[in-house]
Amino acid sequence: MRPVAILGIGQTKIDEHWDKSLREIGGEAAFAAMQDAGAEKVDALFVGNMLSPLIDGQNQLGTYYADWIGLWKQEAVKVEAACASGAAALRAGLMAVSSGDIESALILGAEKMTDKAGHDVTSALATAADADYEVEQGISFVGINALVMRRYMHEFGWKHSDFAPFSINAHANAMHNPFARLHQKINADQFERSSMIATPINLMDASPIGDGAAAVVIVPAEKVASLKGKPRITVAGSASATDAIAVHSRKDPLFLSAAYQSSKRAYKMANVTQDDIDVFELHDAFSIMAALSLEACGFAERGQGVRLGLDDGISPNGRVPVCTRGGLKARGHPVGATGIYQIVEVVQQLRGACGETQVDGAKIGMAQNIGGSGATILTHILQAD
Amino acid sequence: MRPVAILGIGQTKIDEHWDKSLREIGGEAAFAAMQDAGAEKVDALFVGNMLSPLIDGQNQLGTYYADWIGLWKQEAVKVEAACASGAAALRAGLMAVSSGDIESALILGAEKMTDKAGHDVTSALATAADADYEVEQGISFVGINALVMRRYMHEFGWKHSDFAPFSINAHANAMHNPFARLHQKINADQFERSSMIATPINLMDASPIGDGAAAVVIVPAEKVASLKGKPRITVAGSASATDAIAVHSRKDPLFLSAAYQSSKRAYKMANVTQDDIDVFELHDAFSIMAALSLEACGFAERGQGVRLGLDDGISPNGRVPVCTRGGLKARGHPVGATGIYQIVEVVQQLRGACGETQVDGAKIGMAQNIGGSGATILTHILQAD
Repeated sequence: MRPVAILGIGQTKIDEHWDKSLREIGGEAAFAAMQDAGAEKVDALFVGNMLSPLIDGQNQLGTYYADWIGLWKQEAVKVEAACASGAAALRAGLMAVSSGDIESALILGAEKMTDKAGHDVTSALATAADADYEVEQGISFVGINALVMRRYMHEFGWKHSDFAPFSINAHANAMHNPFARLHQKINADQFERSSMIATPINLMDASPIGDGAAAVVIVPAEKVASLKGKPRITVAGSASATDAIAVHSRKDPLFLSAAYQSSKRAYKMANVTQDDIDVFELHDAFSIMAALSLEACGFAERGQGVRLGLDDGISPNGRVPVCTRGGLKARGHPVGATGIYQIVEVVQQLRGACGETQVDGAKIGMAQNIGGSGATILTHILQAD
Repeated sequence: MRPVAILGIGQTKIDEHWDKSLREIGGEAAFAAMQDAGAEKVDALFVGNMLSPLIDGQNQLGTYYADWIGLWKQEAVKVEAACASGAAALRAGLMAVSSGDIESALILGAEKMTDKAGHDVTSALATAADADYEVEQGISFVGINALVMRRYMHEFGWKHSDFAPFSINAHANAMHNPFARLHQKINADQFERSSMIATPINLMDASPIGDGAAAVVIVPAEKVASLKGKPRITVAGSASATDAIAVHSRKDPLFLSAAYQSSKRAYKMANVTQDDIDVFELHDAFSIMAALSLEACGFAERGQGVRLGLDDGISPNGRVPVCTRGGLKARGHPVGATGIYQIVEVVQQLRGACGETQVDGAKIGMAQNIGGSGATILTHILQAD
């Protein structure tokens, strides 16, 4: 495989952009990434998006954006893996550049979840679960995650309040990220008193939806060997793995087997272990997912992911800094775009551009993007020269 | 780029499969392809599908199928480019195998368009067009193609009946394809007297929807160098190109610029010209598209694609055999699966397995898959050793 570097990054603020269309938010992020990369053209566009057919009545998003941002005649395609669509689009682009068939690609994650006339967001998000064997029974996507969290608490003896550090850390870090959806510090009391959504998941366990787009430009690593001013950032590891789509079909619903598989493959490809990871942008769609991800990737023992938060291990100065720009919980979760936001944020860390939430001397960063409640999981490891 | 071979093919009959789910038709094609390839496992699954979020309430189709067909833990993803989703999934898989990151892949195109409770098919298909600037105005997807056909007839002086050969050839060839949706020969009179859908497109100009799935297994070409019994079939050319998503934004709405671009790139990669193509499975979603595709790929002059039909140039014994297994018109058009049906059919031709519609001595075949009314176009060239 030909090594690939990330040359430029771009993102929009995640918000309810009632004044901007799906086209416009995607264009904003794409142009920002192209400008950051100093690129006027790329060979291909890979778009990560989950909900545009349902919410925006629009398919064929690859070509839709190639048209809008002026990549006329160029190759373009959309990749979808529910909430892991962003990372899946990145991986498709990586494969194309690695193969030698193309020399550059723009990867765009974009999602507009508010202010449209299509499906309501709750039923649209439920398409990530199994339509025949989960959704048909009347359960929502939050409900599925609530069952997992309840079982985890029962199995390992944790209280709801033990999950508070994930949310508190995310909100604290988002205060310093101008692109974050929520700029509001919270404390343990506010976490515990928040409105219930699906017991035991309350509003502070759950990530907010939003409109957002993020983009990166990738090129063969050998082409940026001589780049000055900022470190060259390469994709050292990339892997994708799956599990049963319905939670009840999994051997162990409390173990993210696809996170274990994809992180194992990514570590091997990058020739690192979890101890080498300086910063980890994980997929805290719900606080339970943060705990399970830490466990499956080797940062905590089974049932002890929560402990890492309680022991102050997840802050920017902790042993395993997570959600350093706010995570899904406070930066926001525009589903198909989230995986690219994570990559953008790891790049920011490796560039040393994160100010108050900068992880000192970060050289190796990891991003993990989850589709469904653990069904499709992609892990990427980035490395600064 | 590491060359890639197609090791196995599989397909279901296209029909209204009221007794089979989306899962089941996809599994049927996948298992058939794995069996034909003699493979028990593959490294990754790439699924082409357009409508499952809208019609089946199901996203994350990569993992959904990996789960169903027993590719546990393996990588899986869905690729979407409207009606070109099948070929786009193939191209994503090709890039991944070419890159050296994986050693085998199953590419599955699947679509269930009947017997479900979601969107009606006409509004779901309209998501291939521009939601803001075309569909919002009240036009259907057939309506857009009708405007193009009307303009073509006006510009180049053709009558509606001049398009008959495309439909007659497709129906005649489908008689010998057990997987085809329609087994019914038609004549020029039946073509002309058929029910009008959107003037000038009548029922015999338009391809039927249906439930269907088709699959191929791909591996590095060097791994099948020693295969006996059937010729080794390699992907000699693969390219994708785009045009403006809305027809009114195109420089020339009567020229498929993305077909021209992608065929040009594919010819170059395969080191062939259009004269070397023995069989061409084109995207006759509407008869006008067959004419435009022939012109853009260099088989006919501008405005003269129709002439090729009138001069008996498109039958299995003609100068440019097209739709040899029935094409979209009579084999059927389960949108996201169509691109893989085309590949399966080209492989059948290169294997010499097409009986009455076999193109004598076919060694090089081409397939072209179109998303929208010309917005995303992929061209693949296969070659038999």
